[in-house]
Order: sequence, then structure tokens, then C-alpha cells
Amino acid sequence: MKLPVSTEWVLHCATTLAQLEPGVTASTAQLAQYYDLPAPYLAKQLQALVKAGVLAATTGPRGGFRLARPASEITLLQIVEAVDGTSSPYECREIRRRGRGALPPEDCRNTCVLAEKMAEAHEAWRRSLTGVSLADILASLPPSAPARTRSRLAGTS
Amino acid sequence: MKLPVSTEWVLHCATTLAQLEPGVTASTAQLAQYYDLPAPYLAKQLQALVKAGVLAATTGPRGGFRLARPASEITLLQIVEAVDGTSSPYECREIRRRGRGALPPEDCRNTCVLAEKMAEAHEAWRRSLTGVSLADILASLPPSAPARTRSRLAGTS
Repeated sequence: MKLPVSTEWVLHCATTLAQLEPGVTASTAQLAQYYDLPAPYLAKQLQALVKAGVLAATTGPRGGFRLARPASEITLLQIVEAVDGTSSPYECREIRRRGRGALPPEDCRNTCVLAEKMAEAHEAWRRSLTGVSLADILASLPPSAPARTRSRLAGTS
Repeated sequence: MKLPVSTEWVLHCATTLAQLEPGVTASTAQLAQYYDLPAPYLAKQLQALVKAGVLAATTGPRGGFRLARPASEITLLQIVEAVDGTSSPYECREIRRRGRGALPPEDCRNTCVLAEKMAEAHEAWRRSLTGVSLADILASLPPSAPARTRSRLAGTS
């Protein structure tokens, strides 16, 4: 059970964008340089965040990305599911209906109790990540972080 | 983020073995026929459960598998981690130390707050599955299930 490597990238990039002044954007090239990431692949991930409503993209020579909503309204779950999808890691292929032990259809009207318990665990994971917003992450950073982030991102320091 | 397909197999096989009379075992061939699964690959998964202390294997012409402990002492987490390992789905490669935004070592003494929140979510998932034992699963089955399971597994019905 592995999340894509890009999960770390998008969590960090969203945290970085959350530290910009209102109205300011950052380009894929700036974010790629900031974390030393491959720009073409990062661009694809940032587009996934736009599609999920986490980021907004502006076009033109000064175009780039910014948060689509206030940091307090963006959760870690939204960011992670933007690049990995929402499906549960457990796949129930209904083997209870197969082979010599196959249960009759009338015994399979309810979800298999094992699939149910696996789904509950996935919901516990989702709930944990829903409980953390980008604003919570920013609040845990040192007070000097936003100024440093902005100047490094702009390449002025 | 996907668990192996065999996760469903081992959860069901352990539930099946939990329904046998004390001292009775089932062979790989019996379990494979019961769920119509490929025996060689299932054998590998059952060995992983033995290694994890969930099942005990007996050898000889009547050899097979049984639970290594009472059903109340075997959790879904132990079964799932026997085939998928214990590592978190989130991989932190410390990109905070890389590129133009690289943080100095003194700012990286603590775990990155994003990695910390992802680890908390994984712990919530593990806690959920630790809270469910095979005895809990058995308690949710219809009272007629164990007798049916035994006769189908033995091939006598």
C-alpha cells in the first residue's frame, strides 16, 4: 500500500502557496526549483490540484498557481485525494461467492463484514486527514517561514 | 494506494479457519478450492500468515493450517500487515532539504509536520483494524455458518 511519490510534492507545494501574499502566484518552474523537482511531472500534479479545486491557475506571461480557497478551507485529504483518488486501498472481489464455499445470493445482500471493517479503517484515515487544514500546517511553522518562503521562491535570496 | 488482491484471500481464509473445531486443520488445496483461488500463490500468502504468528502449520499427510492463537487474540491488522507489511503508505523523502528552498539542518531536527500528520492518519487506520478481532467477525456471522463452512471445506456437502 503506497501513495505516489508526488504526494509529498503536492503537500509541500500547497503549503508553499499558502504562504504567498493574496493575489500572488507561483509558476511550475518556481515550485520545481524551490524543491528541485522535475518540472514536467510536477506540472501534471499541479493540474490535478486545479481539477480538484485546491489550486487556481492563471494564464499569461505572469501566470501561475495560487490557492483556490482560503487555507483554512483546504484539508490534507483534499490534496492527497487530488493525486491518488478516493478509492479504498482494499479491493473486495466477492470471493465469498466463488468456489466450493460459495454463499447463495440471499446471503450476500449485505456488504461482506470484512469489506465493511476495511472500509471503516479507510474512513478513519480519511477523517484524520480531513481534520487538518493548510491553515493548521501554517500555524505550526516558525513565524519567519512565510517571508523566507516568498523570497526563496522569487529567487531574490 | 492499493492493498494486494491477496488481502481479501487471507482475511477470508483466516475467518474460515476460525470456524474449525479445535485441533482440526485445513490444507492449502482445501482453502484454494473453497474460494476458487490459485493454490501456489495462496500457499505463499498462508506462509506469510504463519511467519506473522497468525497461523500454525502442521506437516505430514494430514498436515495443514490452523489458527496459531484464539480468534479473540487475532486482529484484522495482524492479518493485513502479514501480507502487506507495516510501513506507512506515505513516503517522506525530505524534499524540504532540497532545491532553492532547502531548509538548514537545524530547522529539520523535528519530523516534517506534513509527514507527522500523514503518520497520524496511518495510525488511525491501524487503530481501526486493531480494534477488530476474528472473534468479532465470527460473532457477526449467522449461527449456521460454522457447520456449513466445515462441511464445504471437507468436501462432504
